[in-house]
Amino acid sequence: MDTKFRSHCAIASALDLVGDKWSLVVIRSLMLGASSYSDLLAAPEKIATNILADRLERLEAMGLITSEPAPAGAKARRTYRLTRPGAELLPTLQAIAAWGEAHIPGRWRIPDWFKSALPDDFLDPAKDQDKDQRSS
Amino acid sequence: MDTKFRSHCAIASALDLVGDKWSLVVIRSLMLGASSYSDLLAAPEKIATNILADRLERLEAMGLITSEPAPAGAKARRTYRLTRPGAELLPTLQAIAAWGEAHIPGRWRIPDWFKSALPDDFLDPAKDQDKDQRSS
Repeated sequence: MDTKFRSHCAIASALDLVGDKWSLVVIRSLMLGASSYSDLLAAPEKIATNILADRLERLEAMGLITSEPAPAGAKARRTYRLTRPGAELLPTLQAIAAWGEAHIPGRWRIPDWFKSALPDDFLDPAKDQDKDQRSS
Repeated sequence: MDTKFRSHCAIASALDLVGDKWSLVVIRSLMLGASSYSDLLAAPEKIATNILADRLERLEAMGLITSEPAPAGAKARRTYRLTRPGAELLPTLQAIAAWGEAHIPGRWRIPDWFKSALPDDFLDPAKDQDKDQRSS
């Protein structure tokens, strides 16, 4: 993905990649267990199909998610999951969630498991092991 | 500020407020010491004047920043500073910064003082005390 960064600032550059209304919402849904296009479409924010398709393509091109054909017999065509760089957005989402819960009245309570989750919780140990073996 | 939230999710709602390419960059600049319109305009991302004016207005309407006429004799017309809710975006910015530094090659190194800063470091103790006295 050919991204023009506005500066060399780590904050501004990270926002060049995921600083829009939807990218981190899609990442959040994957952390909450969504794995198919229809799971992601079913999130309460009612994302439009064209926006979802665009964000999935962008997130995959940036290496934050990966997708593969769904197992035979599954309803979905593809399954999506977070890569390590994608899963490592967790502290950012935990901080945003804590801020939203503290400063915007009437939000849903953040589940305790999410507050104390670690990036590894969202990675598939078997697949990570495969990758380690391939690269060694 | 009349914000339509996409859902009651704390993450999606926080992004409804500051989930764009510029709002958190302006907050960052204030944390790094900018206090006037021209300071903010001088940030390396080259924000356009109309976007900066819009974001300052939005951030102030949301209660994340506050502004006041600059002291007599100052070059600037107004000075801007973070409110407590604005300063409390610090953990979010620290997490985004750490992610950007780790995952985007060639970024500027995050200063150690920023990594270990606390929201209170960006608040004016005198003004906060005034407010506490007013409300007690």
